[in-house]
Amino acid sequence: MLHIKPPSIEKLAYVMGPYQDPIARVSPGETFQVSTKDAYGDRIVSANVRLEDVIQMPFVNPCTGPIFVEGAEAGDTLVVHIKDISIPRDFGASIIAPNFGGVCGTVWTRVLNEPLETRILIHPITPDGVIYDENLDISPIPIEPFYGTIGTAPLMEAISTLSPGFHGGNMDAADICPGNTVYLPVHHPGALLYLGDGHAAQGDAEVCGSAIEIPTTGTFSVEVIKGRATPTPRVENDEYLMSIGSARPMEDAARIAFYDLITWLSEEYGFDRMSVYQLCSHVARVRVANMVDTLYSIVAKFPKRYLLKS
Amino acid sequence: MLHIKPPSIEKLAYVMGPYQDPIARVSPGETFQVSTKDAYGDRIVSANVRLEDVIQMPFVNPCTGPIFVEGAEAGDTLVVHIKDISIPRDFGASIIAPNFGGVCGTVWTRVLNEPLETRILIHPITPDGVIYDENLDISPIPIEPFYGTIGTAPLMEAISTLSPGFHGGNMDAADICPGNTVYLPVHHPGALLYLGDGHAAQGDAEVCGSAIEIPTTGTFSVEVIKGRATPTPRVENDEYLMSIGSARPMEDAARIAFYDLITWLSEEYGFDRMSVYQLCSHVARVRVANMVDTLYSIVAKFPKRYLLKS
Amino acid sequence: MLHIKPPSIEKLAYVMGPYQDPIARVSPGETFQVSTKDAYGDRIVSANVRLEDVIQMPFVNPCTGPIFVEGAEAGDTLVVHIKDISIPRDFGASIIAPNFGGVCGTVWTRVLNEPLETRILIHPITPDGVIYDENLDISPIPIEPFYGTIGTAPLMEAISTLSPGFHGGNMDAADICPGNTVYLPVHHPGALLYLGDGHAAQGDAEVCGSAIEIPTTGTFSVEVIKGRATPTPRVENDEYLMSIGSARPMEDAARIAFYDLITWLSEEYGFDRMSVYQLCSHVARVRVANMVDTLYSIVAKFPKRYLLKS
Amino acid sequence: MLHIKPPSIEKLAYVMGPYQDPIARVSPGETFQVSTKDAYGDRIVSANVRLEDVIQMPFVNPCTGPIFVEGAEAGDTLVVHIKDISIPRDFGASIIAPNFGGVCGTVWTRVLNEPLETRILIHPITPDGVIYDENLDISPIPIEPFYGTIGTAPLMEAISTLSPGFHGGNMDAADICPGNTVYLPVHHPGALLYLGDGHAAQGDAEVCGSAIEIPTTGTFSVEVIKGRATPTPRVENDEYLMSIGSARPMEDAARIAFYDLITWLSEEYGFDRMSVYQLCSHVARVRVANMVDTLYSIVAKFPKRYLLKS
Repeated sequence: MLHIKPPSIEKLAYVMGPYQDPIARVSPGETFQVSTKDAYGDRIVSANVRLEDVIQMPFVNPCTGPIFVEGAEAGDTLVVHIKDISIPRDFGASIIAPNFGGVCGTVWTRVLNEPLETRILIHPITPDGVIYDENLDISPIPIEPFYGTIGTAPLMEAISTLSPGFHGGNMDAADICPGNTVYLPVHHPGALLYLGDGHAAQGDAEVCGSAIEIPTTGTFSVEVIKGRATPTPRVENDEYLMSIGSARPMEDAARIAFYDLITWLSEEYGFDRMSVYQLCSHVARVRVANMVDTLYSIVAKFPKRYLLKS
Repeated sequence: MLHIKPPSIEKLAYVMGPYQDPIARVSPGETFQVSTKDAYGDRIVSANVRLEDVIQMPFVNPCTGPIFVEGAEAGDTLVVHIKDISIPRDFGASIIAPNFGGVCGTVWTRVLNEPLETRILIHPITPDGVIYDENLDISPIPIEPFYGTIGTAPLMEAISTLSPGFHGGNMDAADICPGNTVYLPVHHPGALLYLGDGHAAQGDAEVCGSAIEIPTTGTFSVEVIKGRATPTPRVENDEYLMSIGSARPMEDAARIAFYDLITWLSEEYGFDRMSVYQLCSHVARVRVANMVDTLYSIVAKFPKRYLLKS
Repeated sequence: MLHIKPPSIEKLAYVMGPYQDPIARVSPGETFQVSTKDAYGDRIVSANVRLEDVIQMPFVNPCTGPIFVEGAEAGDTLVVHIKDISIPRDFGASIIAPNFGGVCGTVWTRVLNEPLETRILIHPITPDGVIYDENLDISPIPIEPFYGTIGTAPLMEAISTLSPGFHGGNMDAADICPGNTVYLPVHHPGALLYLGDGHAAQGDAEVCGSAIEIPTTGTFSVEVIKGRATPTPRVENDEYLMSIGSARPMEDAARIAFYDLITWLSEEYGFDRMSVYQLCSHVARVRVANMVDTLYSIVAKFPKRYLLKS
Repeated sequence: MLHIKPPSIEKLAYVMGPYQDPIARVSPGETFQVSTKDAYGDRIVSANVRLEDVIQMPFVNPCTGPIFVEGAEAGDTLVVHIKDISIPRDFGASIIAPNFGGVCGTVWTRVLNEPLETRILIHPITPDGVIYDENLDISPIPIEPFYGTIGTAPLMEAISTLSPGFHGGNMDAADICPGNTVYLPVHHPGALLYLGDGHAAQGDAEVCGSAIEIPTTGTFSVEVIKGRATPTPRVENDEYLMSIGSARPMEDAARIAFYDLITWLSEEYGFDRMSVYQLCSHVARVRVANMVDTLYSIVAKFPKRYLLKS
């Protein structure tokens, strides 16, 4: 089985775009593995480091890629089946960084208040779950691994791996997890897939700016849907159709997500748009995936059980 | 058992404030019932009405209240236990109204595009659940009734029952449901409680602007926590501590909700603020309650299981 | 000449609404004077006070009113001509208050960062202009007095005098100044006009949250336009037609302002809407009036010179 | 005098980034000319074209660049003096495009309402000014040419020329005009300067999404300030210090602009930060540059007259 490993440090991908050479090639139907470094490049291994010694902004969130998918061409949709995520390390890391987070001043929501102080935690990963912190007496957190970052090369732009968008990217949506299928747009031959930012667990909104950050080895297969474009990332499992919108302010992210979900349901399931808009008002579920990145991400979910007659 | 019914039409409450006389009085510990009209004043009983004949903006979302709670004084917290909600009608109603909703131009997000067309649906309520629409062949929607609107009189303002805020109001949060306890601020003797806007079912975000709208008869008891203020509405059940923020843009609603949740956990459960901020980033859940009202409402939830040592 | 003075302290208006009795009556065409206290109730007379000793939130921004305008009825427009503003004090005051301002955390944009420290300045008003501060060696600021707050009673709500909105209120727009005419909606017999929050000078956006705050004595006359509603405050002088939108986020305030300006130009000057939308893109001027209040206020301005053939 | 012309069509720059080879080199102190195509690639020459025949999104707003500035290195500031802009065409063009603009649904603020209809206008440029439209009887618009788009290559990203940001880009700020000096960050050897999107005239906010769009020939000189970084674009003339923030929502753009203006005044003019924050609240001016692009742009301006003792 092909196992795609993170490239050497000077070739790690900190942007998604059409300007890098593929580091590997995969074919539709093939099962393959991809390993990823954690969001800090695996450099935080102790709570006793100084953040500025291990993190050099914006060189965070390194992705493994681009991966060339045989047969994918502009205008197609790349289908990524996430089969498994394993965690090749016995701890996760998380930080509070100055000027980053959901309930503090940031480089985008600028305030004159003093920045928050840096905090670094190491979280042991045990068979019982993630141990939050030895100084805080709480139950272990269940391990529910997913990829914070997955995307394809945009048409012309090279977009930071810290940013989510119509191409995917750093959405921090816990629905990008084993068992789920992700649909991404294709703008270039080979689609140019990137993966990174493994999370062992994350709360909705990722409110302080970090999850339980981990390196991963994931198992995948891909397909290509020819001639069908995907306007914004979509996810599907047995339970839900899901559309992800990324924008600021947060309501614009939600508008993109719902607009696409309504489009999906009307184009492929035969509903008229106003009916399904009204129906979503009664049955949809919404996840706030992140409220910390350059754009916020919202997942609008339609329960598939309503697609079948009772 | 005291049963508080909606007042006559000219006394229905379309604002929450200190300028109306109480319509009833209840005592802490007493079990009592409150009936409410639906958001349209029970005037939509058929899909074949013209909206302008039955709805005269802003005279929508009439509430039952104010209810005077004996012993409540400024600076206290009103505790409302919702014991049960019954639905005294065999149908719900929902509409798409021009210039109202989450994925369209509105009176606040003004656009030059033509408004959406009005749509009115009647949804039969059956033992199997809510029947969406005879023209749309989907499974019944489970009945999960809750109050879209609950609040106390603000200090000086009289606020439309269409608006949520620090006083509660039209939050459209499905967590205001039987089994849950709601904490509200008290600014006046008697607290002056208002209730309305029953929903038989609602999707997260209430994206088209209406739920399955119903009249209700609810069963309640109240308590007063003396000398403790509640900065923004809180909800609690066996599973979660929940804080509700209402603001625009949506990220500000989420900030208020998380800020209060962090405050609650630090003040009453002994966490330091930065620890619980970081912990929320790993375990919190978030509900987008509404993205359609004058302010959007977000519920930030902390799972109580983490409060107990494993 | 009628001179309406601020009522006694217990009757100062901290909300605009239909729940207070008029303190005076004026007739269309009559010239009259209104005196107002400053935003701090004239209680900050030295930089050496503790803010909590002189300000008790939310009892700030007291207005003089409501003033009953003879002949005004629901559905009319109240026209206010501001003829003059004199300043009956030889200093202005300004503060930075914790959790209030445009570049800091606030009660709406909640952050975990420490609040800014309180600052109080007294600004001598001299024939040369406003002296900023003896410790800061800058030129005097020209005196350009205006009313930060002007509005009429909303239909049902009582709205804090700290809030702007469709009824006017705390817009902090420097265009509410001598020589200009203000158009406000009428929802009740007598219109119920409120005035307050005099500013000797203010920057666009009022970014720290306060202007050079002053008491005033203003000279006014009013008119009533029968049977014409005004959807959001409008201002006019020889140079501009101006519409004011108040909302959050700020782009929604701008959308309301431009939507109304386009409506005004199409309804009263015969333009088709798309033409004037496009024309505004080439000639409009915009003032950010405030980015600190409960809602932000934007003034969209159309230069009247383009209404006349060259 | 060096005259840098737009490259051949296949080399026009639709992104700003480090992935393109310079098309020309200039030295500090040298006076040189740059010609630019209009935002539509000079392809709209008549109102009788179909937009889809001449515009292929996202291939709009082509820039001339990158221009290599000798001596500029990462961490420096590029200083651009705009000496003159001439208009080598006797008309400007403007459009309303579906899903683009400030008072309509867009691809970011998604709505289910029908998109606005496309509109194309050709505006004769005459000695008397810009003639708006023969069907609309209004005075000519004064010609006040400026560059809608100016920027340097970001560190890692390639950003669409439709986007403004910390690197400059499509700010649509009328202050980027003859007589003014622009300061831009340098992330790469040679700075990699891009220029485009000439406007013969534009209203604040560019509310319908287009100005009077023109090709240009501009005259420039550049300087390099060694070892001083510029966090966000700055502009200076005799009257104002100006900082430009680009973000969504619009208040975040304003926060960035004011934060930088306060930083500038405190670092280079010796004010303490809180003093100048408060002072800006009394004397700053603000321009809403655009409310239509991927990020909105706000210019915060400090009048230099206050820097001199009276």
